[in-house]
Amino acid sequence: MNSLIGILGGMGPGATVDAMQKLIKNTPAYRDQDHIPMIAVSIPDIPDRTKCILDHSASPLEKMIQYMKILENAGAECIIIPCNTAHYWFNELKLHTHAEMISIIDATCEVIRDKKITNVGLLATTATVKANIYQDNISKSHIYCHTPTAAEQHLVMESIYTYKSGNALAAHNILAPVKDRMLQDGVEKIILGCTELPLILEGEIQKTPESYIDATDALIKKTVEWYFAHAHRNEVAA
Amino acid sequence: MNSLIGILGGMGPGATVDAMQKLIKNTPAYRDQDHIPMIAVSIPDIPDRTKCILDHSASPLEKMIQYMKILENAGAECIIIPCNTAHYWFNELKLHTHAEMISIIDATCEVIRDKKITNVGLLATTATVKANIYQDNISKSHIYCHTPTAAEQHLVMESIYTYKSGNALAAHNILAPVKDRMLQDGVEKIILGCTELPLILEGEIQKTPESYIDATDALIKKTVEWYFAHAHRNEVAA
Repeated sequence: MNSLIGILGGMGPGATVDAMQKLIKNTPAYRDQDHIPMIAVSIPDIPDRTKCILDHSASPLEKMIQYMKILENAGAECIIIPCNTAHYWFNELKLHTHAEMISIIDATCEVIRDKKITNVGLLATTATVKANIYQDNISKSHIYCHTPTAAEQHLVMESIYTYKSGNALAAHNILAPVKDRMLQDGVEKIILGCTELPLILEGEIQKTPESYIDATDALIKKTVEWYFAHAHRNEVAA
Repeated sequence: MNSLIGILGGMGPGATVDAMQKLIKNTPAYRDQDHIPMIAVSIPDIPDRTKCILDHSASPLEKMIQYMKILENAGAECIIIPCNTAHYWFNELKLHTHAEMISIIDATCEVIRDKKITNVGLLATTATVKANIYQDNISKSHIYCHTPTAAEQHLVMESIYTYKSGNALAAHNILAPVKDRMLQDGVEKIILGCTELPLILEGEIQKTPESYIDATDALIKKTVEWYFAHAHRNEVAA
């Protein structure tokens, strides 16, 4: 139970499973016992993050704190949240736990800076876009962040809700023209800044992985790094 | 957090994610909040189940109880274990929790009986086969359970460990001739009685789903059933 990773999930459940799958795939392991220990809470009655930010409806914060406490009580030493929009409350969540927390936004922006990208596109929920969650982070590094038009953003959000409603193909067909237009207009890469997007665009990512920065993937790679740095410290201390 | 499902996982981690994915796919849901609440513990330092049963090496029981307590303390009301071999200790585990537990063996054998199958093949770990975990259950219903020859069983086990070592393609190529021979010899269906097998034979299952009984799938369908029966009871009581 060395350096247990806690996953505050359910936002949505499919994205939680995707994060776990990516954690497994990014771990060098030759048998069950080599894998990174994790605990995932996927209790999806957390109020809609986008609706809260845009319409001031019920806040997800209280439930997120409650479910984060489950992870902490179970012994999680590092907590991650595979939901970009939920990071609107990241600093507030940090105040409520003694565990380390890795931000999906920081992890993704670090990848953008490391790749020396200067002109990036952003696909994310309308709340993530309007709250400038990504833009505030990368503008400090003088990286231009290209966001969809209002009409396109409406389609992005429709695609995300369509995926959540169980229709992956329709979600893909709604989103595809938006990402095509952004790539044709010359952005170097597109940030998949909502954890449903790597699932909606799975086929495209396999064909042209160089066009995308998958935020879930960035978060997981940072988490694996944290684990090995931390597990090593524990061994030295023992 | 109504009727929280606890998943005692990590045996292996890939099978845990497969079970979660199947729980999501088997839930009628149109938004995040419609999904079944779950908590999954995937701490894979649990000693190898097969080695313990066959070679009397370290027992996994103590760690399984410890991680089951995490689920119970988090509020899990129903606990499932996506690992067939671990069910060797199922009755003992049941003594250590107040939560309901659904057996993957019982769920799978119920499917076999419901389908009026009289001649079934079994692919599972050598420990599951030798401990008669499936045979004891279905022989009561006069169903004949066809198991691989000793040489074939060696290949099944090699395939499972190869998958766990990260080589899905090699695992498939080792296993394919064994399932081909069993189907050619006239078994009606093959029980995929190890939770890695639906992952190893993913392509085949998509092509000819009627040839297989996926134990993980049987467990999950029973779990979804439990959830809706239980959530309904809670509503009536409220």
